[in-house]
Amino acid sequence: MKAQEKHVVLLSGGIDSTVLLHQLAHEGYLIYSVAFHYGQRHSRELACARSQAKAVGVADFRCLDMSFLSGLLGDASALIPSGMSVPELADIPMDQRDHPPTYVPNRNLLFLSVAAAYAEAIGASWVCYGAQAADEYGYWDCTPLFLERVNQTLSLNRHHPITVKAPLINNSKTDNVRLGLELGVDFGATWSCYRGDEYPCGVCPTCVERLHAFKNVGVDDPLSYKPA
Amino acid sequence: MKAQEKHVVLLSGGIDSTVLLHQLAHEGYLIYSVAFHYGQRHSRELACARSQAKAVGVADFRCLDMSFLSGLLGDASALIPSGMSVPELADIPMDQRDHPPTYVPNRNLLFLSVAAAYAEAIGASWVCYGAQAADEYGYWDCTPLFLERVNQTLSLNRHHPITVKAPLINNSKTDNVRLGLELGVDFGATWSCYRGDEYPCGVCPTCVERLHAFKNVGVDDPLSYKPA
Repeated sequence: MKAQEKHVVLLSGGIDSTVLLHQLAHEGYLIYSVAFHYGQRHSRELACARSQAKAVGVADFRCLDMSFLSGLLGDASALIPSGMSVPELADIPMDQRDHPPTYVPNRNLLFLSVAAAYAEAIGASWVCYGAQAADEYGYWDCTPLFLERVNQTLSLNRHHPITVKAPLINNSKTDNVRLGLELGVDFGATWSCYRGDEYPCGVCPTCVERLHAFKNVGVDDPLSYKPA
Repeated sequence: MKAQEKHVVLLSGGIDSTVLLHQLAHEGYLIYSVAFHYGQRHSRELACARSQAKAVGVADFRCLDMSFLSGLLGDASALIPSGMSVPELADIPMDQRDHPPTYVPNRNLLFLSVAAAYAEAIGASWVCYGAQAADEYGYWDCTPLFLERVNQTLSLNRHHPITVKAPLINNSKTDNVRLGLELGVDFGATWSCYRGDEYPCGVCPTCVERLHAFKNVGVDDPLSYKPA
């Protein structure tokens, strides 16, 4: 029965992966979810990932400890405390928005590789990934071509080929917020802000994108932002 | 200067990656080495990895903790204690030797992804990997086609493409032992046996392959095998 096919889902606790999770649950799949602690400044996103996994009743939720990654990457990403501080979107020049300082080296291939290993171990054929088209900025490892190349690699597995699907890859953030609202997602239990402070900052790249999306949809973001 | 180009090398402590390490050192590259603790039965290979890294004077050696992997993979691999026991090579039917029980789901893509992240962070363009042609048995993620697909994926990185090279990929284990002897490798400080007991068992797939290789070269393996 298609509806009970096992799907492994990468969860971050942000908007895109949360909407994807709810969509897969809505379609009736048996969901195994994985999130990663990798030393990110905004590790508070992980509590949201766990909460969303619980909300849809996943078969399993794993928060995996890859905290070695922050030490390995040193100052190579603004998402890691030893890196530069998280810039405001407005301060990132237009010609750097396809590779902003918030990029984490090769993180997505790494997380997809773990998810594919897990999928193979539990007999799942699908890994799902909330990659989303660039609105304000983007990363090479969120593109349709990247997805295609990863799948060409995983298809070589002679006994258990895995396919990665990213059904939201051509959506804007606005599309994802709209879809999430239709699916009944509690966006108050999602986290985006790269700075990871008590309140979302409202000015970092992902906060700006998130706020634009809610504004476009005409709904208030349920999160409380940093008081001025 | 070519000779001081940074290279990230995956080290396991076995024959292939050790010979590769020595070859790269011989060529004068600046070597950053990574090894992984992933809950393997034969984690004693890691002391060998460290010892070999020290022997060639690497710029850095990291042994990374991915011990979550054994829990994630459950009984999916004989290399992990919760899986089936490590079979003797003689007990693996010929039609399963392209995918033996000692296969670890998607491990190589995962390790290569970590190595590529590290390479990107330190400004290296190369990741080196001791994949070797199948002698007695083999894995889909040690083939030239796998390598090609991984490189097609990593080449999409717009700002820092990484290339994985596996110069021993068409070598037999015998070729690697011969090359290692020429390079002065101390094979007494390498570990292969998948069982990871006090002495190598001499009968598991990798022990058999190793012993054949030394026999073919006409040299005694310096390791002491399990007394009868």
